[in-house]
Amino acid sequence: MSEWYMKKGDAVAVSTRIRLARNLSEFPFCSLMNASQLAELNEKVKAAILDSNMPFSKQLKFIYMDTVPENEKYAMVERHIISPEFAANSSGKAIVLSDDESISIMVGEEDHLRIQIIKEGICLDDAYDIAERLDTMLCDKLNFAFDIELGFLTSCPTNLGTGLRASVMLHLPILEANGKISTLADSVNKIGFTVRGMYGEGSRALASFYQISNQITLGISEKNALDNLKAIAMQLIEKENEERQSLNKIKLEDMCYRAIGTLMNARLLSGNEMNNLLSQFKLGADMGIISLDVNPLKIMVEAQPYMLMRKFGEMGPDERDIYRANMVRKEFEKR
Amino acid sequence: MSEWYMKKGDAVAVSTRIRLARNLSEFPFCSLMNASQLAELNEKVKAAILDSNMPFSKQLKFIYMDTVPENEKYAMVERHIISPEFAANSSGKAIVLSDDESISIMVGEEDHLRIQIIKEGICLDDAYDIAERLDTMLCDKLNFAFDIELGFLTSCPTNLGTGLRASVMLHLPILEANGKISTLADSVNKIGFTVRGMYGEGSRALASFYQISNQITLGISEKNALDNLKAIAMQLIEKENEERQSLNKIKLEDMCYRAIGTLMNARLLSGNEMNNLLSQFKLGADMGIISLDVNPLKIMVEAQPYMLMRKFGEMGPDERDIYRANMVRKEFEKR
Repeated sequence: MSEWYMKKGDAVAVSTRIRLARNLSEFPFCSLMNASQLAELNEKVKAAILDSNMPFSKQLKFIYMDTVPENEKYAMVERHIISPEFAANSSGKAIVLSDDESISIMVGEEDHLRIQIIKEGICLDDAYDIAERLDTMLCDKLNFAFDIELGFLTSCPTNLGTGLRASVMLHLPILEANGKISTLADSVNKIGFTVRGMYGEGSRALASFYQISNQITLGISEKNALDNLKAIAMQLIEKENEERQSLNKIKLEDMCYRAIGTLMNARLLSGNEMNNLLSQFKLGADMGIISLDVNPLKIMVEAQPYMLMRKFGEMGPDERDIYRANMVRKEFEKR
Repeated sequence: MSEWYMKKGDAVAVSTRIRLARNLSEFPFCSLMNASQLAELNEKVKAAILDSNMPFSKQLKFIYMDTVPENEKYAMVERHIISPEFAANSSGKAIVLSDDESISIMVGEEDHLRIQIIKEGICLDDAYDIAERLDTMLCDKLNFAFDIELGFLTSCPTNLGTGLRASVMLHLPILEANGKISTLADSVNKIGFTVRGMYGEGSRALASFYQISNQITLGISEKNALDNLKAIAMQLIEKENEERQSLNKIKLEDMCYRAIGTLMNARLLSGNEMNNLLSQFKLGADMGIISLDVNPLKIMVEAQPYMLMRKFGEMGPDERDIYRANMVRKEFEKR
């Protein structure tokens, strides 16, 4: 088993993410908790998770964030395991993590528990199924704050109810290039979904990757929320595929091969340029223009600043551009 | 023997050109000549050139421009054999051309005869030597308009005297990048030399290639004009080489390899982009960063619009970009 970005996902649908927000009724919300309450929360979650009767217990590790080196925290953000806010403010907090990093639980983020499942491709039902099983088992051992009228109680009212945020990451270079993405995002917004960049809230679209997620958590069942999101995602995928059919073949080939030419030859490569080039390469590969056994998502994740430093040691941005270029070149050379 | 652009020349000094303007005293200047006078001029030059006592006669061909296809005329411009004005207005005119195209004489351009010698590298004395021998022999057979006070009489007073225009083509990417070229050009101008783009008068610098030529033809000996030009050129070459020493090695490598990456991968390539990339490649090759047995000058000349059409047949600009990209790719692949 390996991380989501080690697998190629689908052509347009790159990955799926399920997040459940849960709180324990015996504690105040995180923003009001003191250090000893946070420590107590950690121990309760740890005990629940590591209970040998838990089917997941063998694949899950409980990690105190104070034992995690600073750079590794941000490398976790780059792997989509924790949020940037959690990395920046993780003192006394903890995470639960599966070996393949597809299951993670932030303890002490905005809510007491943020359960996350992340998988390659579009697989909302499968990912939710895992989240639900984990949730059910934790629910047995932990006293989740739940109101019969409102559902799960959450720190922020936008999560009240199901506490479910589901999202799919889509690669939409042609809808973006044709200027159709903003109109589509507006329509999607009006019916309770958001379209955002690769790194969630507030982040700009990076290399034509867009996250589509549900906004409504109150007065809707989990199944309906997932079905609606799936329908929206399928529509966007279809539209992107439609637009791809009318592309000028020679221009597309030119773009794709130029991207490879630069990726295979640059001696200095910024993260931003690399991501854009890999996005162009992915489009060409997905459209069958080239068949190179290279996984652009793997490179995009592994060549980010903290992921690079995790592998090659502390360095400044200029040096990272050199290491990034070398790493990318090797990935393409060994294809 | 092959054309100047088939040889690599020196790192900075790409080629040398000598041009002599000559007129026959029995005819009015070209702008005032009628068709029959032009025909008569042609025949006189032809007879002189093809005279078996001429040492050059075996390597020289006399070509009536009316027998040259339109596209080939412009391909000759691209090979620096004739001027764009001559190509555009060549009815009834002629050229004399050596097999390796290093010797050419336009008959009926601005002056009755424009004798040109073009050679790779910087070799003003050698090139002038050939021009002078040719001039001496033609002088024996043709009645050149010459004034004991003024020297050779020419259509335009700027050529009066020696009728000599000598130039060297220099590759000055770093003087250009550092913004020093315009100051240098101004200084050079003040002492009677001009700095121009690759295709002579009025043409802008293309891919960092600059032509340095003498302006003064009156009251100066040919030897002095050539020595002064050589001194100026050597100074510019030295300055360019000095600036190259302080370059950031990794940035230079990055630029050079990216250029190769694009040249070897693009499926669409405009002439302008290709020239700039080949200029970057040439800099890297000349500085020993890469050793690929590719001659950028050959490609720059052979991938120009009319040179392409000469080889592959009539086509529009879009199609040329495809053929150009294919040709460039093959040149790099077979290295």
